[in-house]
Amino acid sequence: MEITFSYLHLFEFTRNVFLAMGCSETDAETATKTLLSADVRGIDSHGVARLSGYVRLWQAGRINPKPHIHIVHETPSTAVVDGDRGLGLVVAPFAMHVAIGKAKNVGSGWVSVQNSNHFGIAGYHAMMALQHDMIGMAMTNASALVAPTYSVERMLGTNPIAVAVPAGNEHPFVADMATTTAANGKLEILQRKHEEAPVGWIQDEQGLATTDAHALKNKGALLPLGSDREHGSHKGYALGSIVDIFSAVLSGANYGPWVPPFPAYVPMPENQPGKGLGHFLGAMRIDAFRKAEDFKKDMDQWIRRFREAKPAEGYERVLIPGDPEREYEAIRMKEGIPLLESVAEDLQRTGQIFNLNL
Amino acid sequence: MEITFSYLHLFEFTRNVFLAMGCSETDAETATKTLLSADVRGIDSHGVARLSGYVRLWQAGRINPKPHIHIVHETPSTAVVDGDRGLGLVVAPFAMHVAIGKAKNVGSGWVSVQNSNHFGIAGYHAMMALQHDMIGMAMTNASALVAPTYSVERMLGTNPIAVAVPAGNEHPFVADMATTTAANGKLEILQRKHEEAPVGWIQDEQGLATTDAHALKNKGALLPLGSDREHGSHKGYALGSIVDIFSAVLSGANYGPWVPPFPAYVPMPENQPGKGLGHFLGAMRIDAFRKAEDFKKDMDQWIRRFREAKPAEGYERVLIPGDPEREYEAIRMKEGIPLLESVAEDLQRTGQIFNLNL
Repeated sequence: MEITFSYLHLFEFTRNVFLAMGCSETDAETATKTLLSADVRGIDSHGVARLSGYVRLWQAGRINPKPHIHIVHETPSTAVVDGDRGLGLVVAPFAMHVAIGKAKNVGSGWVSVQNSNHFGIAGYHAMMALQHDMIGMAMTNASALVAPTYSVERMLGTNPIAVAVPAGNEHPFVADMATTTAANGKLEILQRKHEEAPVGWIQDEQGLATTDAHALKNKGALLPLGSDREHGSHKGYALGSIVDIFSAVLSGANYGPWVPPFPAYVPMPENQPGKGLGHFLGAMRIDAFRKAEDFKKDMDQWIRRFREAKPAEGYERVLIPGDPEREYEAIRMKEGIPLLESVAEDLQRTGQIFNLNL
Repeated sequence: MEITFSYLHLFEFTRNVFLAMGCSETDAETATKTLLSADVRGIDSHGVARLSGYVRLWQAGRINPKPHIHIVHETPSTAVVDGDRGLGLVVAPFAMHVAIGKAKNVGSGWVSVQNSNHFGIAGYHAMMALQHDMIGMAMTNASALVAPTYSVERMLGTNPIAVAVPAGNEHPFVADMATTTAANGKLEILQRKHEEAPVGWIQDEQGLATTDAHALKNKGALLPLGSDREHGSHKGYALGSIVDIFSAVLSGANYGPWVPPFPAYVPMPENQPGKGLGHFLGAMRIDAFRKAEDFKKDMDQWIRRFREAKPAEGYERVLIPGDPEREYEAIRMKEGIPLLESVAEDLQRTGQIFNLNL
């Protein structure tokens, strides 16, 4: 069962929840925009379905609704930002603005963030660069659910990488991907439907392949992109590690198994080496390399040529990264955002904490 | 059958071949060092086994032995370098020096390269940053062998990404990976041994899974990291695309199916949109983010913690990216570099063109 809400309706409700948590007008608006960008783009696992999780983190004192987000160190093209335990939904856009400002001045800007929380979808932050004729990049680490190749221990989060590239007449290229074979959100959908997972998504406590979608509850682990060594899981493991290092070792946040868990009831890992969780954001001005006009002409041709690549039998067309999400966006901004009944009920309960009705 | 040569012996021979091609003393030395770094690190497909290929490109007039490599556009943190059809083995180190210089000045440096040729292993260029206490990155596009998800057409090269990160007491973290499930070199090994490929490495002309290691000769294609849609091949496709865009659309080189082929006998694609093939190189100064000392302490802890992750049954230990290559290096610098008899014969024939003996 699904209930459909308009974007504006969900926006108002969510903004009021953030305001009730004590966020400023500006921060509540930014956080809402960031969070809802997931629902709009069809990434339901990262949108309002997580609002109650953020509220519980706030209740547990692990989110500061009035953070003093600030630069702790910088050079003309780099910075470390301290999120002051704020919502990642607000901290990451702040850091992305810093990156964009530096790219305006010296061609590119790269910001590593400490002391933050979950930032929603990586794609949203990367896409902030597009309107400035810049390439945007965003990554974040997350609590450990993924076992490195040859291991049974959860050491990495699903650690996504997003890259947004402007085009001319064509829509922008927007890649936004977990560095695992399947994102945790996809597993949650199977759990709700009581379906099995494909071989190659998860392993059990012994490190053996399993199709049990609940294996993570029994000390299983998600697998890095590639699934197993023979199919390149060491590459997915390396990619997830790079995200972890850029986001947290470079900023002084927590890394690997020390990243704070999203569910507020899970205790904090002991002996944490850093502050909060970490992100890494970047922006490169197109005309810091070549004329934006020339780049866009080539990017249009790149996109059109890939779109025209001969499809395999049974498939209509080749997709460009960002196509599915943009198609969701067009539909949902017009027809509304369908929420599972359980998600709507969860939102309703969350609202009641603050005397707000969905 | 293998024949073992000392590093110095292969170095002298290779350097003399490059000198005979008309390279300057400095360029011949740089090209040799770059090329042999593959043999030393156990990536046999990208080392001296390719020397005859470079010579044939030179014979076909597609490599300029005396290139005027130069910056065509720059900002404090970015540049586009024109390789003037030089050996990528020389062009990429030039561009990496530019990136490192910019990182010294403004914190980071990012260089996109046009008009180049194949640059050996990506890891070598990324590692140039390590001695400067910088993180190094290197990527390159390559001739199209890889089909995007849902397609039967070869649109991307194996487009590798390398990232090198300095540590303190531990060895550096060095990831160097093709964005495909398996590199083409691994397929060539199976071809020579008349063995089948695992399902998930390649597809046939119709886009169906095949284990025929020769499928590429019959219009088959390599598969992006992830192998199929269910296992995330759209992510490998996106990663390969990002490498292509950063290396070639940003620089004005050829991209997608227009990238010049490595074998000199394969005709150039028609209507090429750019110049030569493209690379992308980057350097970030550690202390542009935080004290190098603090970073290295955390990086050491990162490495040790991952090394200690509980191994799955049947495995001794978890590897850190760069471990296998470093172990090769230690052995081969001492005991020599074993070459397949066919590779040694190929080198011998290549030497004869210039009256050089292996």
